Amino acid sequence: MQPCPSILIALILTFLIPNTCFGYSPREDARVIKEFKRQQGLNHAKIARDLVHRANWAALGSLSTNKLVEGYPMVNIISIDDSDASGNSTGRIRFLLTDLDFTGPDWQKDNKVTLLFSDEQTLRCKDGGKDPMEPTCARSMISGQVQKLDPSDQSYQPAKDAFVRRHPAADNWIKAHNFYLCELEISNIFVLDFYGGPHNVKASDYYAVSK
Amino acid sequence: MQPCPSILIALILTFLIPNTCFGYSPREDARVIKEFKRQQGLNHAKIARDLVHRANWAALGSLSTNKLVEGYPMVNIISIDDSDASGNSTGRIRFLLTDLDFTGPDWQKDNKVTLLFSDEQTLRCKDGGKDPMEPTCARSMISGQVQKLDPSDQSYQPAKDAFVRRHPAADNWIKAHNFYLCELEISNIFVLDFYGGPHNVKASDYYAVSK
Repeated sequence: MQPCPSILIALILTFLIPNTCFGYSPREDARVIKEFKRQQGLNHAKIARDLVHRANWAALGSLSTNKLVEGYPMVNIISIDDSDASGNSTGRIRFLLTDLDFTGPDWQKDNKVTLLFSDEQTLRCKDGGKDPMEPTCARSMISGQVQKLDPSDQSYQPAKDAFVRRHPAADNWIKAHNFYLCELEISNIFVLDFYGGPHNVKASDYYAVSK
Repeated sequence: MQPCPSILIALILTFLIPNTCFGYSPREDARVIKEFKRQQGLNHAKIARDLVHRANWAALGSLSTNKLVEGYPMVNIISIDDSDASGNSTGRIRFLLTDLDFTGPDWQKDNKVTLLFSDEQTLRCKDGGKDPMEPTCARSMISGQVQKLDPSDQSYQPAKDAFVRRHPAADNWIKAHNFYLCELEISNIFVLDFYGGPHNVKASDYYAVSK
């Protein structure tokens, strides 16, 4: 069902009035209307899944335990993969951590992390003429808990193999240091893909996207 | 002065023994020795300055005040610029914030933020065949406090002009919403640019790098 024109115009005006929305206001009204119509078809859960699957890494925020920045948020670059054995997206965000790096000690002290994914990681925004901070440069902030995976579980080896296929260097990390494979247990997903503020996506809807 | 060979070899061996260093171990010893020799010439402060100047954005970590993820770290994508009027690096990290976004309310509640810069933001690591999490894919985590700049200060307009030159879309953010120009007051700099763990760089050394 299409929204009636008056509701559509009211919503558009809401976007154009400063300070009434969470986000930024676009320059040209005509472009907004066109984009707004397009945005009706946006599937925020799918956008999050696509961002995660395209990304080779995430900017992972943790609550720092490092004595130089204790009490600060720390942000680390963490290689990630969500592929199944065929290289398709599963949405399950897996990564290797070591206690020798910043993130390892942090999550074990207070298990709250947020991973940022942005279309600018692959230069899709730059190539499309969008500033990385424009709301139309899609991003997702996914928060949750780090789960250390059990090497004796039958899903462990396929997950590890998929990770190493995507990140061949990881083969050496596992051999030379005590890296351990983890998965994010998702507690909250924000998606910002247009003007008007972020969308909250349920983890069940995120995982239900079929690829 | 060159370090004597025995010290050099001892240091290299230190890097190769698992769990004795903060970082990952490389695959080929010969490559390590070559890289280690090269690394002697690395200027960590300059690497941080170069990372900041090349980046159009940072993954900015804050302590979340959003009710859905309160107590978690939040990671946002924030457009940045450190240019002077001629487009040269100053090291002074400036950015526009709005209280309508995640970061604005966070820093005003607890003014502790960390900005991640990585060579992978511009695909320099990918293009060089390096995994984004390899220590040789240079990164810098810069922590500090958000300082709201005073529009009546004589340095404000040139800083704003430089920002808008780099981020033309920002012109509209300022006009349409209550965005305010900020600068990071740096309290800690970590640089990871090779095997063997992060380096701590003094803010004074970072700013002293001449460009």
